[in-house]
Amino acid sequence: LIDFRSDNTGAVAPEILAAVAEANSGTAAGYGMDRWSAELHHRFSDLFQAEASVYPIATGTAANGLSLSVLGPPWGAVYCSCHAHIETSEANAAGFHSGGLKLSLVEGEFGKLSPLALESAIVESGIGLRQRSQPAAVSLSQASELGTVYSLDELSTISAIARRFGIRIHMDGARLANALVHLGCTPADLVNKAGVDILSFGAAKNGGMLCDAIVVFDRSLVEPLEFRLRRSGHTWSKMRFAAAQLLAYVHDGLWLRNAARANTVAEEIGRQMAAMDGLSLAMPIEANEIFLNVDGRVMDGLERDGIGFFRRGPATARFVCRFDTTESEAEALLSSIRRHAAQIQAIPLGTEHSTHGSHR
Amino acid sequence: LIDFRSDNTGAVAPEILAAVAEANSGTAAGYGMDRWSAELHHRFSDLFQAEASVYPIATGTAANGLSLSVLGPPWGAVYCSCHAHIETSEANAAGFHSGGLKLSLVEGEFGKLSPLALESAIVESGIGLRQRSQPAAVSLSQASELGTVYSLDELSTISAIARRFGIRIHMDGARLANALVHLGCTPADLVNKAGVDILSFGAAKNGGMLCDAIVVFDRSLVEPLEFRLRRSGHTWSKMRFAAAQLLAYVHDGLWLRNAARANTVAEEIGRQMAAMDGLSLAMPIEANEIFLNVDGRVMDGLERDGIGFFRRGPATARFVCRFDTTESEAEALLSSIRRHAAQIQAIPLGTEHSTHGSHR
Amino acid sequence: LIDFRSDNTGAVAPEILAAVAEANSGTAAGYGMDRWSAELHHRFSDLFQAEASVYPIATGTAANGLSLSVLGPPWGAVYCSCHAHIETSEANAAGFHSGGLKLSLVEGEFGKLSPLALESAIVESGIGLRQRSQPAAVSLSQASELGTVYSLDELSTISAIARRFGIRIHMDGARLANALVHLGCTPADLVNKAGVDILSFGAAKNGGMLCDAIVVFDRSLVEPLEFRLRRSGHTWSKMRFAAAQLLAYVHDGLWLRNAARANTVAEEIGRQMAAMDGLSLAMPIEANEIFLNVDGRVMDGLERDGIGFFRRGPATARFVCRFDTTESEAEALLSSIRRHAAQIQAIPLGTEHSTHGSHR
Amino acid sequence: LIDFRSDNTGAVAPEILAAVAEANSGTAAGYGMDRWSAELHHRFSDLFQAEASVYPIATGTAANGLSLSVLGPPWGAVYCSCHAHIETSEANAAGFHSGGLKLSLVEGEFGKLSPLALESAIVESGIGLRQRSQPAAVSLSQASELGTVYSLDELSTISAIARRFGIRIHMDGARLANALVHLGCTPADLVNKAGVDILSFGAAKNGGMLCDAIVVFDRSLVEPLEFRLRRSGHTWSKMRFAAAQLLAYVHDGLWLRNAARANTVAEEIGRQMAAMDGLSLAMPIEANEIFLNVDGRVMDGLERDGIGFFRRGPATARFVCRFDTTESEAEALLSSIRRHAAQIQAIPLGTEHSTHGSHR
Repeated sequence: LIDFRSDNTGAVAPEILAAVAEANSGTAAGYGMDRWSAELHHRFSDLFQAEASVYPIATGTAANGLSLSVLGPPWGAVYCSCHAHIETSEANAAGFHSGGLKLSLVEGEFGKLSPLALESAIVESGIGLRQRSQPAAVSLSQASELGTVYSLDELSTISAIARRFGIRIHMDGARLANALVHLGCTPADLVNKAGVDILSFGAAKNGGMLCDAIVVFDRSLVEPLEFRLRRSGHTWSKMRFAAAQLLAYVHDGLWLRNAARANTVAEEIGRQMAAMDGLSLAMPIEANEIFLNVDGRVMDGLERDGIGFFRRGPATARFVCRFDTTESEAEALLSSIRRHAAQIQAIPLGTEHSTHGSHR
Repeated sequence: LIDFRSDNTGAVAPEILAAVAEANSGTAAGYGMDRWSAELHHRFSDLFQAEASVYPIATGTAANGLSLSVLGPPWGAVYCSCHAHIETSEANAAGFHSGGLKLSLVEGEFGKLSPLALESAIVESGIGLRQRSQPAAVSLSQASELGTVYSLDELSTISAIARRFGIRIHMDGARLANALVHLGCTPADLVNKAGVDILSFGAAKNGGMLCDAIVVFDRSLVEPLEFRLRRSGHTWSKMRFAAAQLLAYVHDGLWLRNAARANTVAEEIGRQMAAMDGLSLAMPIEANEIFLNVDGRVMDGLERDGIGFFRRGPATARFVCRFDTTESEAEALLSSIRRHAAQIQAIPLGTEHSTHGSHR
Repeated sequence: LIDFRSDNTGAVAPEILAAVAEANSGTAAGYGMDRWSAELHHRFSDLFQAEASVYPIATGTAANGLSLSVLGPPWGAVYCSCHAHIETSEANAAGFHSGGLKLSLVEGEFGKLSPLALESAIVESGIGLRQRSQPAAVSLSQASELGTVYSLDELSTISAIARRFGIRIHMDGARLANALVHLGCTPADLVNKAGVDILSFGAAKNGGMLCDAIVVFDRSLVEPLEFRLRRSGHTWSKMRFAAAQLLAYVHDGLWLRNAARANTVAEEIGRQMAAMDGLSLAMPIEANEIFLNVDGRVMDGLERDGIGFFRRGPATARFVCRFDTTESEAEALLSSIRRHAAQIQAIPLGTEHSTHGSHR
Repeated sequence: LIDFRSDNTGAVAPEILAAVAEANSGTAAGYGMDRWSAELHHRFSDLFQAEASVYPIATGTAANGLSLSVLGPPWGAVYCSCHAHIETSEANAAGFHSGGLKLSLVEGEFGKLSPLALESAIVESGIGLRQRSQPAAVSLSQASELGTVYSLDELSTISAIARRFGIRIHMDGARLANALVHLGCTPADLVNKAGVDILSFGAAKNGGMLCDAIVVFDRSLVEPLEFRLRRSGHTWSKMRFAAAQLLAYVHDGLWLRNAARANTVAEEIGRQMAAMDGLSLAMPIEANEIFLNVDGRVMDGLERDGIGFFRRGPATARFVCRFDTTESEAEALLSSIRRHAAQIQAIPLGTEHSTHGSHR
């Protein structure tokens, strides 16, 4: 299989494995009372130029669900895009962790929510009315689930709206490094310019192993979050082995290097695909994902050639590049698609039957 | 620090680290669709001589809370000992995961619940009455939180009661290997003789790294559990790295060798402590924990000597042995306690002031 | 105040008060074990030509939330219109009662969901995928929140789709009597032709006092519902006084007479409004509510005249007729609106400033 | 049936029915925005000599569950007696409404919790430790479920403990009027001397119809409670008819007269029972309930005579007196029990077989 299915199919960066091995000596207090966890706190506070509490956690779904659960009461509403992972792919995690919170979908383009639509949704929400879901937070995926990235301007516009109405900002940073690389901004800009209160900090999709993190900037969220982490079973006893992973992940720019590599491969593949007859990009490529408008018969051909990817519609394919996607993988994909696309161009439409299941 | 605080302060068995490194090659489908996960299913089914679905999971608290959540409705009652970890140390995880389930405490000795008391609690519960919590399950910690072990006879008595009333059996096996070694029975006996329906399978306390597991024997629990795992954020995307840990853990008896080592050290230390003047065991030593009746002044002395342990009362100390507790650690503990105990014997009671905080 | 704000501002039908008084003699077993409750079961089973379990309940919000909570797991999705009361006006009750269930909004016209859009939403939902909300039920408001009514044909189309995918049908019948009167069908048609599994049976808006009801046709829902009613505090101890209200409500057609009266008044008012210059109906009038396209300055005028109604937009007004709306109230409303509408017609647009808050 | 089963089997006080009828004129704004609700606020604030927000509610279970849900986080613990209705008879309502809160049982005598045991439980709880349920509130039933009453001294001792540890006080006043009558104290004493923060105010058991109330004295609880009421379906739209019931209930001392009547009958019956051979009171009679030590054969006899009561053990019977228990009912009970008790005295124990089911 030439694997472009997802960035979670990839390997663990060797630096991270080495850090885990290095942490494996002597004993250490449990539940985050170890020195790796303490260092993590300092390291991330430096990185974000703000006091940051960092909680290593098993998955991004947990990071999102728990983050949202501390941002508002269970009668709250969290605004997000209809493409948000919290809406489409977490089996009601937000409602579960919070005890009933509602996701309110906000319109927008390119997988991002529109500031105007957000403002209008809040204005219409009926703040204070006992029968209405109360605006609690806005959740932004950075990079978005469609491989696009909010600009700092977009973020600060959204942040201003949120502040005006007293609601908080959650960022789902499952692909945060990819977005940072694209923007060329610092992690600190997310706090200082984008006003993020709590962050799902992704590592698994970018060379991590078994942990992501929640990073808290709003101090009032720390205590409730710590209890929620414990009772949901998300506080590891042997925390040092998780903290060590995250320390290695941000050490010496590893995370940004990994993301830059994935972004670059995606951009190059996308550029070449877009130049082929009959293909066009469905979304701008701003991170490590390619959404391609492509005939179903071409997708059939890719599958026959052993290319792994996901169909996102009858004429849309998604390809994801990893930090460890090789040049030969990229070439294999391009060569296969070039061949099938050319073949299709040569055949009048409708003369061949295309079968396509709904892959997800 | 000479560390007898807990078995979660210890290292990771090198075999497990090696297995993780070995799994780190190529790509693999996410969320448990990889070949390590498939092998895990087969390996555990062999081990337990019954079809077993295995779900690697971040913590024992998660394993317990999620297991209980599928055993009954949110108006259910789960019977357990007042010493059960689910009651004392999981911040209401059971009530959280299930949406309101109640723990009903059942009397017993040595940290275990009494079959007679269990039966009487079920009989008095008011089965079918709409205003009453409905009996859903019994949860047994094996080994118990007080370092003791249910015999197979005790387990089958409890199992028979549970079957008679149509309630299910959960086993909290945070220290399962220690119990198996003590009993000299097979894992399969837990299913076939003890009738366990769902098992929290502990690894972290016995040389594991960042994962324990839920093992399901009752097939009807599989589907709801899988959705609950996902929405609580307990389904890793890069699952192969968790599955590989568990495969190594049970490979070639590693788990039982580790547990045997911890149990043996505990037994030897306990034997020597019990022989000292003024000291006596508060509990029989059947696993890797020592509960000692000891003067508070002796505990003060241990702390001054840099011995790590927990006070479980003004005159009770808990020492936990790990798979990697060294002989020199054992000797240091014994030598320190021998010296302080002798000193106390030489001094009439009440002539020295003992300070002791409430360590937990 | 000339009151067209809502049908919950009205009086209690004298027949219902009389029935409560008549039930007030002797003692009766609590929690629905009384003879009024038994009679209710029989009476509704006759009415719906199907075995019906009837649970008097304090509010429609409770009826809806509890009904949905038994129709699917907490990782389920319930399909409804974006105008549905469960979505707009129940402060996340569905998510609360179920422990996290999600409402999935389905497109449609006139406040009703479109069968085609429903089918497509189910098809796209990802049945069986662990990361997706699983289709559990469709919830239909009959009459809808926009005063329209699903035809029996529409209902049976929706029912067929639901059956095909194995999901259940909840009907929010807060204004059920108004819909039945409009359709001229029998209550039994809802079960036999529309396939309703569980029904929120409204009475309060149509001459009831303090109770609505849940009516269950799917026997498998009875036991979980009874426990959920009890633990949510919705099982009255002195149930006879609630059951007596509902018996009187359906006795000798009272509910249908009341609804017919409200519908007739609404239709007549609507007819006359639609005939005025500058006014038009925003929705067909099929029950007891009028949604009117009307200049904001006309609404200002109505308010100055002491007419109670709700603004549903800058140029939309909602008027609700009650079973006890008097002819003089109807005339007062018509006369006021006629006067203000005429005045507006005489003034060129934009020459007067209209202020309008967002009334709800 | 001569009915001593419960005080919820009784009638509605005629004054309350009359008030409901009187409220039935004209229209009134919904959801508590009516003038009866406003008056209720003033009337109860006078009664308790403190600003009191009053929320009429369908049942005592709802009042308890919702009250507890605002007193602490879902990882909180509420201390109560093992006899508390919230523990024994509400199908996990507290865990449900709060999303996982735990009830921690505290020892005590006569159905009341012991201040010393309470203090010790809080001290041992592990305040601040993330793995522990955090002390949130103490819940006191006044009168208790065993028909006894906390003295003002007991209450202020408990209140002082609660204040010292920063936890709040909930009072389950399902039989509050009976307790007030026994103590001869004012309602205000509950706030000023006993420090109650939130009160489940019972009416149904003492001549009410379909509503009890939550009374809030701690202003910070008002907003979360109002949202919780709405989303749990406990905010009536036609609230005036509930408020009118409560206004009548406390008007001109009706509630206290009703309770005094029930208490007096209970006391007189208890006095006479205690004087009979072979019978003794199991609990002091301080409200309207009699717990009697009595041979099972005597209970068999009572049942044959058509006396309604509950068996609370093989040799314990519970008789409850209502505000409308008649003298002839009291005489019928006394005469029946006198006859059967005498018969038993005449027969040597063990010569007759006694059958007794477990009535609840």
